Amino acid sequence: MMKIPEATIRRFSMYMRALAQAKEDGNDFVSSRDLSKRLGFSDAQIRRDLNYIGTFGRAGKGYKIDFLTKRLSELFGIDKKAWDVALVGMGNLGGALARYKGFGKHGFTVAAVFDSDEKKIGKTIDTLRIEDTRVIPSVIRRRKIPIAIIATPASSAQQVADELIKGGVKTILNFAPTRIYAPEGVRVKNVDLSIELENLSFYLNAKKK
Amino acid sequence: MMKIPEATIRRFSMYMRALAQAKEDGNDFVSSRDLSKRLGFSDAQIRRDLNYIGTFGRAGKGYKIDFLTKRLSELFGIDKKAWDVALVGMGNLGGALARYKGFGKHGFTVAAVFDSDEKKIGKTIDTLRIEDTRVIPSVIRRRKIPIAIIATPASSAQQVADELIKGGVKTILNFAPTRIYAPEGVRVKNVDLSIELENLSFYLNAKKK
Repeated sequence: MMKIPEATIRRFSMYMRALAQAKEDGNDFVSSRDLSKRLGFSDAQIRRDLNYIGTFGRAGKGYKIDFLTKRLSELFGIDKKAWDVALVGMGNLGGALARYKGFGKHGFTVAAVFDSDEKKIGKTIDTLRIEDTRVIPSVIRRRKIPIAIIATPASSAQQVADELIKGGVKTILNFAPTRIYAPEGVRVKNVDLSIELENLSFYLNAKKK
Repeated sequence: MMKIPEATIRRFSMYMRALAQAKEDGNDFVSSRDLSKRLGFSDAQIRRDLNYIGTFGRAGKGYKIDFLTKRLSELFGIDKKAWDVALVGMGNLGGALARYKGFGKHGFTVAAVFDSDEKKIGKTIDTLRIEDTRVIPSVIRRRKIPIAIIATPASSAQQVADELIKGGVKTILNFAPTRIYAPEGVRVKNVDLSIELENLSFYLNAKKK
């Protein structure tokens, strides 16, 4: 189970999106060829990925959408209940993430939001009260929140991460433009939005030459 | 040049971040071992990546930070001028992206912002006037903007992409939770923020079992 490559796990997420689309389009079954068209991966890649979870399409019919969706949701632990997520840093990006509808749709609930700015603490974002970053460990511990998103400036990201980990957070999604260090057993995923733009500009630049 | 793997190109971006950090820490040279510590990739990986661009460290000293930074900046075309970027969709996420400081820092200028909502058109975000999505092709063409970011709802993303491409955009970063189709020669990169969370929840879920 733990041997599934990370790239395959990322594609599993995309398969769930494509399955939801195919269902919306009125289908009950979907072929690897149809998934391939929707996602741009090869049929072979898709079959190989789905074999990891022991799912095989029926000859001539393909995959049963409901079954495959359920199987993938179980894999991510989003089949029964939403995961609670804590969000730290209520600047522009943090505020946008707190209101981002995509998280709820995919099995994640923003359950607590924090900021260190006196002017923000006590205000609400949608229905969530912004709490003081000083109470991070106790809130995380009491509510057993396993996932956190950091959207603070780079300068405070590590300290915030330490507090989150102290409270018991096991996985961190970091939007602050700096590297975060975490002890063994805590998983940190860094998201740098400008890297996506740089990636595109590489190809633009190569084309110009 | 075009043969560099995409994963290597993504790491090039991270090398630029680590080089800037090392410079800030007061260094003129950095070893692959130091880069390895800062980034968590192996020395061997780093040397292999940098060999793609014909850059070799000096024995006992490592890489000259200024030289390597310049070489990488050239590769991304961000050495001489910033790339202009158009941003469509001034909701929560679009607004946050318009104000996101990381883009400017890394060689990208948000040069035009668009929305279709009458109540938003004509207002300003920082110093940029929000323009009507109906004028996308003419604005893109006149100002020769090569990169666009879509932060609209899924339902209007494809239409917006078509208008951007009509104007001459060559690369699109798509935050809308839907797949965008583009003709040959136009590169689309989809960013789904909930995929990052799902990726983390997979490991959380695997750990529970």
